[in-house]
Amino acid sequence: MKKIYGIGTGPGHKEHLTLKAVNAIKESEVIFAPNNRGKNMALDTVKDFIEDKKIVLLDFPMGKVEEKHYDEAVETIKKEILEGKSGAFLTIGDPLIYSTFIYLMERLVEKNVQVEIVPGIPSFLASAALIKRPLTVKGDRFLLCDGELTEEMLKNCDSIAILKTHNNKKETLDLLENNGFSWSYVKRTTLDGEKVLSSREDVIKDKDYISLIIGRREEND
Amino acid sequence: MKKIYGIGTGPGHKEHLTLKAVNAIKESEVIFAPNNRGKNMALDTVKDFIEDKKIVLLDFPMGKVEEKHYDEAVETIKKEILEGKSGAFLTIGDPLIYSTFIYLMERLVEKNVQVEIVPGIPSFLASAALIKRPLTVKGDRFLLCDGELTEEMLKNCDSIAILKTHNNKKETLDLLENNGFSWSYVKRTTLDGEKVLSSREDVIKDKDYISLIIGRREEND
Repeated sequence: MKKIYGIGTGPGHKEHLTLKAVNAIKESEVIFAPNNRGKNMALDTVKDFIEDKKIVLLDFPMGKVEEKHYDEAVETIKKEILEGKSGAFLTIGDPLIYSTFIYLMERLVEKNVQVEIVPGIPSFLASAALIKRPLTVKGDRFLLCDGELTEEMLKNCDSIAILKTHNNKKETLDLLENNGFSWSYVKRTTLDGEKVLSSREDVIKDKDYISLIIGRREEND
Repeated sequence: MKKIYGIGTGPGHKEHLTLKAVNAIKESEVIFAPNNRGKNMALDTVKDFIEDKKIVLLDFPMGKVEEKHYDEAVETIKKEILEGKSGAFLTIGDPLIYSTFIYLMERLVEKNVQVEIVPGIPSFLASAALIKRPLTVKGDRFLLCDGELTEEMLKNCDSIAILKTHNNKKETLDLLENNGFSWSYVKRTTLDGEKVLSSREDVIKDKDYISLIIGRREEND
């Protein structure tokens, strides 16, 4: 049998890799990662542990991914891993949170490839650690979402992490403030350029894709 | 100044410790953990890295914690860490998710102790990895909660992790099933005795405190 590890490499800095992630990379003979114009953030995180292993970048064209891209990636993974050996598919954060690996996982199992998932530290945990704000205490609910925020969502949680906020930051901040949530905008957590923004103007101007908003109901503080 | 690391030790097995957690433990001169009748699960996780460091167990009587217990813990921490040195407070999972450390954090800052939080892998990520089910794909919302579940909460998420379900498992499973969620009950993730239960009867009978329910809206599969 062939085996693939779906490895969460965490928020970016290598110190947030788990021992299991490092061991799984060392055990693997081929390292796979999504191709972002010839580079990949997860690959940067693990570069000290890859040594001279073969690296294969897989194409998932941003905003234009079709079924065939997943099928092709699965074929490539199956071809590159030798019988009885392991490969590692790298994904920033955790493999089961908004990741490409989710779409590959079932296809790989169907093709008789053994899948093992290695959890990683999600960016919202690293961001909460940076700003030192609780996500949940007893009785609290935490919501994780991407994209559009609604009032209904805020009514049903005490803390929230909103990923991929780049298109509608003003509306997001308005909704948070109007519903009694304080917020922080965290960009590039654990990476060079890490910064916490708390001015509306700065947040709305910012174009960094690697950013998120963490909010918490003020009465819970 | 004195420094304390709030360290998330993850779901239980030492392989889920991050490199940062291991380094922070090695750098610390005193290791603090909540006292559960003379032992502590987080302490078990890190035992290979503690060497001969001093271990201080702090009393937070289960279900009977008062303000004074936090104040006393803070005094002990401040007394035990020498000027210019570091200590480590261990917490299972992540320090900002349902942890005792949250209540100590602000008090420690007020007492002029420098706080650094080291994120850990939460049990819900390790459980999702075990059962190989996605938490979120594009557009999805994930809700984390403890204790009581309501229909309203399920209407506002696609995936859910429910911690501390021991008191109302039947009601929780009914609500999930009646709202189109499939579920898994995962106990002792990454520890000896790790098990996934999927029969209602087995789940309702089970009394293990270290367990959680993961649910996902079936139409999202």
